[in-house]
Amino acid sequence: MADVTPRPLRTAEVIAVGSELLGATRVDTNSLFLAERLGSIGIELRAKAVVGDNRGDLAALFRQASERADVVILTGGLGPTDDDLTRDVVADVLGRPLEEDAEIVARLRQRFASRGLRMPEVNRRQAQVPRGATVLANPNGTAPGLLIEQNGRLIVLLPGPPREVQPMFESLITAWLEPRTGRERLHYLRVFVTGRTESHVEEAIQPIYSPWRTADPPVETTILAAPGQIELHFTTRSSDGAAARAMLDKVRDAIVAALGEDVFSVDGRPMEVVVGEMLQAAGLTIAAAESCTGGLTLSRLTDVPGSSAYVRGGIVAYSNDVKASALDVPPHLIASHGAVSEPVAAAMAAGVRGRLGADVGIGITGIAGPDGGSAQKPVGTVALALDGPGGYARARTVWLPGGRSQVKMLASQAALDMVRRALMQDAAVRRR
Amino acid sequence: MADVTPRPLRTAEVIAVGSELLGATRVDTNSLFLAERLGSIGIELRAKAVVGDNRGDLAALFRQASERADVVILTGGLGPTDDDLTRDVVADVLGRPLEEDAEIVARLRQRFASRGLRMPEVNRRQAQVPRGATVLANPNGTAPGLLIEQNGRLIVLLPGPPREVQPMFESLITAWLEPRTGRERLHYLRVFVTGRTESHVEEAIQPIYSPWRTADPPVETTILAAPGQIELHFTTRSSDGAAARAMLDKVRDAIVAALGEDVFSVDGRPMEVVVGEMLQAAGLTIAAAESCTGGLTLSRLTDVPGSSAYVRGGIVAYSNDVKASALDVPPHLIASHGAVSEPVAAAMAAGVRGRLGADVGIGITGIAGPDGGSAQKPVGTVALALDGPGGYARARTVWLPGGRSQVKMLASQAALDMVRRALMQDAAVRRR
Repeated sequence: MADVTPRPLRTAEVIAVGSELLGATRVDTNSLFLAERLGSIGIELRAKAVVGDNRGDLAALFRQASERADVVILTGGLGPTDDDLTRDVVADVLGRPLEEDAEIVARLRQRFASRGLRMPEVNRRQAQVPRGATVLANPNGTAPGLLIEQNGRLIVLLPGPPREVQPMFESLITAWLEPRTGRERLHYLRVFVTGRTESHVEEAIQPIYSPWRTADPPVETTILAAPGQIELHFTTRSSDGAAARAMLDKVRDAIVAALGEDVFSVDGRPMEVVVGEMLQAAGLTIAAAESCTGGLTLSRLTDVPGSSAYVRGGIVAYSNDVKASALDVPPHLIASHGAVSEPVAAAMAAGVRGRLGADVGIGITGIAGPDGGSAQKPVGTVALALDGPGGYARARTVWLPGGRSQVKMLASQAALDMVRRALMQDAAVRRR
Repeated sequence: MADVTPRPLRTAEVIAVGSELLGATRVDTNSLFLAERLGSIGIELRAKAVVGDNRGDLAALFRQASERADVVILTGGLGPTDDDLTRDVVADVLGRPLEEDAEIVARLRQRFASRGLRMPEVNRRQAQVPRGATVLANPNGTAPGLLIEQNGRLIVLLPGPPREVQPMFESLITAWLEPRTGRERLHYLRVFVTGRTESHVEEAIQPIYSPWRTADPPVETTILAAPGQIELHFTTRSSDGAAARAMLDKVRDAIVAALGEDVFSVDGRPMEVVVGEMLQAAGLTIAAAESCTGGLTLSRLTDVPGSSAYVRGGIVAYSNDVKASALDVPPHLIASHGAVSEPVAAAMAAGVRGRLGADVGIGITGIAGPDGGSAQKPVGTVALALDGPGGYARARTVWLPGGRSQVKMLASQAALDMVRRALMQDAAVRRR
């Protein structure tokens, strides 16, 4: 074990090696797993890269990463074939000769023999080890991992397949990383907002988060526009978990005070979970009548484990005569107001509530596009309604941007948000 | 337009900017789209990177990429807020001052005004342009794109959201990239298979694709296990489009001959599009009764533009009494067979077909988990049924792996595949 230094490991970069990962259909799932596990022990993933099986490109990326990060993790390119370059390139950049490891050769031969096979000679490449490296056993494949300490940094070479990477990385964390991360951890706060644009959220909260950026420890802020919600991500690094939590709680309270009911989640729960928990707390059941959203709202509500306790079901009425026959929408309403209108949405909400015996009914009717829009009701026009106990009712119309699937997503979000606001604001809807 | 050189554009690198993209839950989908579109005009994506909102890291990555690649594409970090650094960093590395573009400011003000809003002052940041850059209009958002030519290379700055990136990149290809590429193009074939495991597909097709690997030009093969389908991706690079197409057609025909009806798509169309087109061709309408899938099957069917021509609608019956009251499932069937059983699925299919007046009804009832499983019917048990014209009926039970959302996805895939196989195999179901 050469030159161990007491410097704590704080930052990491990941390089995924393999031309196939640059295609149009491949996602590097390893880096998602690595990001989460690194974050959990307080190591920040600063950058990740994907590079093809090209010696020059890989050498350049690796050299730069190893000058920046405390931990550099390379995945892939450890196979037995000519285009598996990771071992060679890393040894070269670090100036360490490759040497054959007799124990790895023996283990490889045994692995093949146990399946009644002779080891192909090409597999000897997998026994090449940069001088001074520690070999990491791979219970699920032929390519062993390698760990190299150099100038207080850790260089980790892992195979490509996720089922080989994951168990190897877990033992690496226990044996090598966590003992050297120091006591600092990353602490997170996620606040989700709906009903405002990104820039209006930014304008409202900029005076709040700005001072925290220079606090001790500083709180970093990221604002992200996701479909149907603005996400605020706050991160701080501290060895005092209670103090960090208290700080993030203050940030959270200030944000909620500034944005009010537009904040729907302060702990990362998505809208369908928030609404589900509110329904369950109020002892209410729900049913949905959907036209343009085509079942998406119900599908999101039922993504939540345990949702059968409060979801009665729903009716997807894609054609006007189904709206009449399955939801009791009076045909004269459609004739006089059009299928996309608040009166029709309200009749759908009342119809599904009655038909399925739910406490709360919602109705969604709109134009998801790309066809079907008009000058008066362009694509993206969606009428939403809620029908509740004791004659409680709400309706609104929204104009949503984007293509067909985005309109569906945003309409279902607006419908769920309507339920949320009704449950927050009106005791009436909570009284069965 | 400075220093245009005749050098053809052959290589590209993509840098996605945004700390949120380094988290454990975010995937950079833009780079998949960019890889495919670049490949289609013969530009090879050599590397891609994701970097947080950190000035130093972004500058280092951008500087290196711009020394290697003919085209460097940066996505994200063009928003109006303090942590949107891409414009600043690129201007800095290229040594070009930032200047406010009056036309962009005017367009931004107009965009806000058209929605009855005042432009927040922070949005002026989005009008900052490195000297000499070409502004790329963004029809779907506030952040314009930027294009800079420097030393014969193209530097492209695009916003983050995919629906903003895609139209901008399409016009960029037409106006700037394609005229400057050589004659070689990448050609793709995608074949989707269902009903077999990845290793069984691999075993069946390995003798087919192996010889093509050493053909001239070679055809590269990638096998990818996606939820509910095995995807086969074949790629070849050639300046002779007709010859490449003919070669890929031969590969396609051999794969279809080997895998038969398990191949459901040879052109990238997803299952819901394939089934929709078959229904439309047969002049049939469909309705779905869903329990465990909670509306997902209908939502997928209605993701397809024009699906209102053949989708009547559906009923999500999450509780047993809704199965009886809204779908006419006889309560004694549930009592004797259980809610998750082929007789109940068949009654649901017949019920929704009758209630909504569709030609084909499907019924899906199962246990999505995490709770509700038993020794006899574990989590993942799903009964599927189809009810068609003239007494035509089918039912089957499947046992699906994975968590709640994967079981939902796989069950909806199996239900749609049941419709597909029925329409392929049985003239009866096509005769109304």
